[in-house]
Amino acid sequence: MNKPVYILNGPNLNLLGKRQPEIYGRQTLADIETLCAGKAQELGLEIVFKQTNSEGELVGLIQEAGAKACGLILNAAAYTHTSIAIMDALKACDLASVEVHLSNVFAREAFRHKSYVSPAVTGMICGFGAKGYELALEAVSAQLTGQS
Amino acid sequence: MNKPVYILNGPNLNLLGKRQPEIYGRQTLADIETLCAGKAQELGLEIVFKQTNSEGELVGLIQEAGAKACGLILNAAAYTHTSIAIMDALKACDLASVEVHLSNVFAREAFRHKSYVSPAVTGMICGFGAKGYELALEAVSAQLTGQS
Amino acid sequence: MNKPVYILNGPNLNLLGKRQPEIYGRQTLADIETLCAGKAQELGLEIVFKQTNSEGELVGLIQEAGAKACGLILNAAAYTHTSIAIMDALKACDLASVEVHLSNVFAREAFRHKSYVSPAVTGMICGFGAKGYELALEAVSAQLTGQS
Amino acid sequence: MNKPVYILNGPNLNLLGKRQPEIYGRQTLADIETLCAGKAQELGLEIVFKQTNSEGELVGLIQEAGAKACGLILNAAAYTHTSIAIMDALKACDLASVEVHLSNVFAREAFRHKSYVSPAVTGMICGFGAKGYELALEAVSAQLTGQS
Amino acid sequence: MNKPVYILNGPNLNLLGKRQPEIYGRQTLADIETLCAGKAQELGLEIVFKQTNSEGELVGLIQEAGAKACGLILNAAAYTHTSIAIMDALKACDLASVEVHLSNVFAREAFRHKSYVSPAVTGMICGFGAKGYELALEAVSAQLTGQS
Amino acid sequence: MNKPVYILNGPNLNLLGKRQPEIYGRQTLADIETLCAGKAQELGLEIVFKQTNSEGELVGLIQEAGAKACGLILNAAAYTHTSIAIMDALKACDLASVEVHLSNVFAREAFRHKSYVSPAVTGMICGFGAKGYELALEAVSAQLTGQS
Amino acid sequence: MNKPVYILNGPNLNLLGKRQPEIYGRQTLADIETLCAGKAQELGLEIVFKQTNSEGELVGLIQEAGAKACGLILNAAAYTHTSIAIMDALKACDLASVEVHLSNVFAREAFRHKSYVSPAVTGMICGFGAKGYELALEAVSAQLTGQS
Amino acid sequence: MNKPVYILNGPNLNLLGKRQPEIYGRQTLADIETLCAGKAQELGLEIVFKQTNSEGELVGLIQEAGAKACGLILNAAAYTHTSIAIMDALKACDLASVEVHLSNVFAREAFRHKSYVSPAVTGMICGFGAKGYELALEAVSAQLTGQS
Amino acid sequence: MNKPVYILNGPNLNLLGKRQPEIYGRQTLADIETLCAGKAQELGLEIVFKQTNSEGELVGLIQEAGAKACGLILNAAAYTHTSIAIMDALKACDLASVEVHLSNVFAREAFRHKSYVSPAVTGMICGFGAKGYELALEAVSAQLTGQS
Amino acid sequence: MNKPVYILNGPNLNLLGKRQPEIYGRQTLADIETLCAGKAQELGLEIVFKQTNSEGELVGLIQEAGAKACGLILNAAAYTHTSIAIMDALKACDLASVEVHLSNVFAREAFRHKSYVSPAVTGMICGFGAKGYELALEAVSAQLTGQS
Amino acid sequence: MNKPVYILNGPNLNLLGKRQPEIYGRQTLADIETLCAGKAQELGLEIVFKQTNSEGELVGLIQEAGAKACGLILNAAAYTHTSIAIMDALKACDLASVEVHLSNVFAREAFRHKSYVSPAVTGMICGFGAKGYELALEAVSAQLTGQS
Amino acid sequence: MNKPVYILNGPNLNLLGKRQPEIYGRQTLADIETLCAGKAQELGLEIVFKQTNSEGELVGLIQEAGAKACGLILNAAAYTHTSIAIMDALKACDLASVEVHLSNVFAREAFRHKSYVSPAVTGMICGFGAKGYELALEAVSAQLTGQS
Repeated sequence: MNKPVYILNGPNLNLLGKRQPEIYGRQTLADIETLCAGKAQELGLEIVFKQTNSEGELVGLIQEAGAKACGLILNAAAYTHTSIAIMDALKACDLASVEVHLSNVFAREAFRHKSYVSPAVTGMICGFGAKGYELALEAVSAQLTGQS
Repeated sequence: MNKPVYILNGPNLNLLGKRQPEIYGRQTLADIETLCAGKAQELGLEIVFKQTNSEGELVGLIQEAGAKACGLILNAAAYTHTSIAIMDALKACDLASVEVHLSNVFAREAFRHKSYVSPAVTGMICGFGAKGYELALEAVSAQLTGQS
Repeated sequence: MNKPVYILNGPNLNLLGKRQPEIYGRQTLADIETLCAGKAQELGLEIVFKQTNSEGELVGLIQEAGAKACGLILNAAAYTHTSIAIMDALKACDLASVEVHLSNVFAREAFRHKSYVSPAVTGMICGFGAKGYELALEAVSAQLTGQS
Repeated sequence: MNKPVYILNGPNLNLLGKRQPEIYGRQTLADIETLCAGKAQELGLEIVFKQTNSEGELVGLIQEAGAKACGLILNAAAYTHTSIAIMDALKACDLASVEVHLSNVFAREAFRHKSYVSPAVTGMICGFGAKGYELALEAVSAQLTGQS
Repeated sequence: MNKPVYILNGPNLNLLGKRQPEIYGRQTLADIETLCAGKAQELGLEIVFKQTNSEGELVGLIQEAGAKACGLILNAAAYTHTSIAIMDALKACDLASVEVHLSNVFAREAFRHKSYVSPAVTGMICGFGAKGYELALEAVSAQLTGQS
Repeated sequence: MNKPVYILNGPNLNLLGKRQPEIYGRQTLADIETLCAGKAQELGLEIVFKQTNSEGELVGLIQEAGAKACGLILNAAAYTHTSIAIMDALKACDLASVEVHLSNVFAREAFRHKSYVSPAVTGMICGFGAKGYELALEAVSAQLTGQS
Repeated sequence: MNKPVYILNGPNLNLLGKRQPEIYGRQTLADIETLCAGKAQELGLEIVFKQTNSEGELVGLIQEAGAKACGLILNAAAYTHTSIAIMDALKACDLASVEVHLSNVFAREAFRHKSYVSPAVTGMICGFGAKGYELALEAVSAQLTGQS
Repeated sequence: MNKPVYILNGPNLNLLGKRQPEIYGRQTLADIETLCAGKAQELGLEIVFKQTNSEGELVGLIQEAGAKACGLILNAAAYTHTSIAIMDALKACDLASVEVHLSNVFAREAFRHKSYVSPAVTGMICGFGAKGYELALEAVSAQLTGQS
Repeated sequence: MNKPVYILNGPNLNLLGKRQPEIYGRQTLADIETLCAGKAQELGLEIVFKQTNSEGELVGLIQEAGAKACGLILNAAAYTHTSIAIMDALKACDLASVEVHLSNVFAREAFRHKSYVSPAVTGMICGFGAKGYELALEAVSAQLTGQS
Repeated sequence: MNKPVYILNGPNLNLLGKRQPEIYGRQTLADIETLCAGKAQELGLEIVFKQTNSEGELVGLIQEAGAKACGLILNAAAYTHTSIAIMDALKACDLASVEVHLSNVFAREAFRHKSYVSPAVTGMICGFGAKGYELALEAVSAQLTGQS
Repeated sequence: MNKPVYILNGPNLNLLGKRQPEIYGRQTLADIETLCAGKAQELGLEIVFKQTNSEGELVGLIQEAGAKACGLILNAAAYTHTSIAIMDALKACDLASVEVHLSNVFAREAFRHKSYVSPAVTGMICGFGAKGYELALEAVSAQLTGQS
Repeated sequence: MNKPVYILNGPNLNLLGKRQPEIYGRQTLADIETLCAGKAQELGLEIVFKQTNSEGELVGLIQEAGAKACGLILNAAAYTHTSIAIMDALKACDLASVEVHLSNVFAREAFRHKSYVSPAVTGMICGFGAKGYELALEAVSAQLTGQS
């Protein structure tokens, strides 16, 4: 398995640790990347970890994952709830894929309950903070090894 | 940590393995219990694993978990989408709690997108089949040990 | 054809003959069972005839029908309009199946126009009082003998 | 009982047997008329059997039934879901009346779930193909003889 | 002023006097024509008075009025609430025009509150039975003589 | 018939003739009162003609009409669309009653299509400017003399 | 406890006993005031009892209660369903407060199910006719004496 | 008056005193039963006081009340908002009946504003904690003695 | 390719050139037929060109096209937005088919944005006036020759 | 410029400084009048400053402004969200006009997001407390001097 | 005519030929560009052909077309359904403009039926695959030469 | 106070002065920058003034303001109505902030009434053209100096 797992992060996630820590926790995105790298190594996976504030760039990165990755973990943040373009990019990929959210989006504002990402991925994990990224890597690994 | 994790399963999950396997997979509920027992042992946790078709009994089991358990994993199946009574029982518990679904409910009928369970638990995992229960146990464990 | 047809009746149908006779008529549930037994004999069918006020029990009885019956006639009464659990149980059965209502539900309150049962059965009959059960038995018989 | 039962069929039903047989079956409208004639004879009833693509003509035929028939069986097809004019014509009749659909309309597109016919007839039968017309004749007969 | 006023009546109005007299009164359509003829004479107007059950014919008659009449009184009955074709025909006319209903449609079912006719005519009169037609003729007359 | 017909006018109608004449015409409310007085005399009726900007006063005037008048003509203007209090006052009256609007409210903003007045009066006239008040007096007169 | 309980009544309640007695009963508002005075004496309370048809005056009376009363009983009648101004006035008061309705508003038209008063008071009592005012006084008394 | 008043309590009310005391208060259900027994004695009434988490059992208990009780007080808790089966059972009873809620449901989540119980009972009391049960007993007593 | 292309036109299109030319242009339907005949000749196609105001006749003409034509161009005008019967007739055809509108329906009233025709045809062209019919013929031709 | 600017304040604004100061601040309405007088003097404007709890009076004051003022600043408070009568009064004025709110209404309950005032004024300012009135005066001044 | 026609393509269209060919066909975007170049030459037009995944860039390209092009063909893909920014950019252009979609968007998910592009362009063509671009060029050409 | 006020402008605002001047006025964005610079100097403030068509860049600029500015004025143009990403970026800032629109968005299309910006800023100013930017600077200044 030489292809990496892409872990893509959407708008404002570069602010993690500073922005509303009562919702998003105190870990920075760099902390999460470190956690993911550790878990990936444990599972024998490589990762590519990126963040962008731009919907168009996120579309491009998902297309890139479709071509180069063996799996995809996507926290599309605010674009989750509005971007059909991201949904279309995901549908064009044929990958083990997981939607992740740090917070429990269903315990927040109603407009965060709608996801254009969910119907285009294998499954979804939310509400467990940075731990959710580790669980997502396990879920990808299980799919790749036929465990789920 | 002597209290067990309750793993509660709602209506029709006793049919697993026979009912619509293209959606729910071929594992039986007994298979899932075995998987959970193994993962629990690995994490140093004990489990209580139950299924019922009755909303009232599920309310009672959640109340029991609130009194006797250290964590709760709930696949409320069809009641997920309609039961305020289950939501109220969950809110009365003060537990690390995870909502699990075998299938990706967001890729199915619209009436399965609404959950009364989600806002009353810590987080949610769906779409990974039986593997989701194992991830849920890890999520509970992480909450209990302060990892998330 | 040794398997029976299950005829299952939901909440408050045990009150038939007493409750709002201007809507539901003056026949008791026992009268309807007698009618059904007669029609079944005429058609060379056996019947199992039950009533329960509990959604969970109704789910269980439908599962039982899925395992033991050759056909299913279901008057889920109030649960018709709210129970996804019953819909899921019906979808797990592979049976000739008929939804019956004594009254014309479409001439009543708007919340009785929605049925979670209808999309999961072969067909529906409503508005003909107890006669509807006899027609339902004929419909099941026709399906079993390939007439429809 | 010298007055006939009118059996009226709406738009596109003249195509039966050719159009989307996976939904509507392979019997032609002529086949159904033959079935109805046989069942009517068995019940001691006469029938008038007609089809039209025109909403206005269907309104006229229902008015005619109100004046000349002892009962009415109506498959208004697509007009079922949109025609208040047909509803008004039905309300002006004082007849034993049955709405019939070949397919289970509730298992199809959402716009077929709404019926302007249902609240203006005695009852409804759907999902049993041509057999539904025979059941409808029995339902009319039962109403005429005071059985339901 | 040699052009007549067209008075057009839609589906089921041929049943007036027989159909649901508690709603529509006991006067027949012929009675109303007589009343209108009298009032028209008094106002120095000629009338053309017609009824049809067909939406398409009604569209044609409105087009004819657009070419040959000086004013239009329209009771489109059930088509009032559903026919965009009638609305389009009305918009193509440049006539003093009045929508009439015998009953107070706003005190009846919600689907009778919506009118596609209203926004395409000068004004509307409802709830006064046959008298409404006389008032409508006065309203047309006032428009023609510049009184309103 | 010694009791008068009350003609009540709601908010902003005191501005008639100045306010948006392209919608409401150039006649003042005093002009309309003069027209009504003339028509009333012709019909052998007396009138009481009032205007108020206050919903509470309008409620009081309708109550007064219920006690002292033989008929009621109401142009509730903006309160038409929002006042349940006016509807309740109308329902407490047992009077021949007519809702009037100068403009064709159905050709204007959507919030003007809803009327709380309509279901509580005998009938409605709109779109004919000041002429509508005269027609309303005729409609009241016809009701009082049993013509409609 | 020298401050009185304000009992405020909204539009059309001055008609009680005359208006639609099948809904509102045959007691007049004066009868209800007498009942309240008796019950208040029994509970050691004083009352101020007023009625107005004006939303603005009702706002003023609620403000006055906020300054001078120890408790508030409000039957806002039709304004219940439409007045945000009354809601704002209630929120500005810091009083034991009860919403009362003579009829069971939830068994009536849908627009009476919405209340802007309910979320701004301690509790609500409806459906018991004049008796509801007595119960409301007890509820206020219980709040003042710390019983509830 | 030898028949008792049934006081029935729905799901999660067995947790009273422990669950979310900021909403539901610190009294247990046993405390409320004691209060009710005292108030009943004062009013010369007997009570039967029960709780269940099961919708089906609650339906059965309401049917039992219909046969054996002189009055019914129902706190259906979460089932209030979703159970048509309970509504149907209530409609089959011919009893003085009161809906009670401890909290002011209208000041909480929107899904708690809808009640299937309200239109099927005499009246409703909410927001006064345990005191509401005492007021409900008085309301039942007043109905039985013709006071309301 | 001996079968013609049917070009069918719905209600009020016979008024083209006279009716609201600012929306529909100044060309008559005869002008459009001439344009189509020219373009068809250029493409080696034959055409049948018809107009009707009747929904039922339009259903019949579509059925006829299904039997006799190689392609279908349909401007159903107002029936586009309301006719399920036309949709059903189209679904029964197996033809290269194009929906055409002269005006840009999406820049007009909201009720013209809904089309029952669109999901039942190959594609749609709107907003280009009479030119749209020529483009539609090219689109049919491309389908017939496998270009699209 | 001899005409004054009218500054009109709606229901409950007389409570400012006492009512919910966490939302509305601690300044009284008199304080705001003083601020406005100062700012007006600075801009060379005169002001008329009024408050009323009555919708009808507010309508009258707006009409008065239409006749006597050069500009209008309106804080209609709760009537903002419900009063079509105020909207109609504003539309009848031809004035530089500004809608003001002390709080950011868009950060509050959903029913405060709807404004009938906004579409009838030049512009809107909200969320800046008493400072908003000063900004509104500047905005009016800019309009009067052609700066905006 | 020296100015070119801009042909602009939105997100994911760079994947054409690979992504879901059962929906979008097997032609790549380069193939479509070639087709367009050929058709443009035939019509005596020049083209500029671009694709971007970024909404902001698409806005910029439309602005550029507004300044430099004689016509615009836009396939905004997923942004069609969500981008008001694109609509605003289109409204700022004064160009012959055509919306194109490869697939029949109206036969797909409901969220693809809404277009912010449609009301801001001359017309729309969908469902004909790459052929639609050729038709769009013809439509632009017809507009430029006054044929439509 | 050494930190500047950021003034950020969204999509299509670079077209100001050219695009639809009847809505947006004739001033260019450069003119507005000049006005702002003058007003800022008067208030003792520095400004950073930027425009972008890209949602992602706007998110980045708001984040930059959160780090480097003392206040923020945002005209997000079309993104106002669709961008949750911008809302999230604003919530992560702790700044005096003002939403500005040149036009009165509430007097325009319904989709412009919804703002994701409003609930995340201190206040909003719309409808005063370029003057609105000057008022916004005063509002920021007042917040910084504790005046509001």
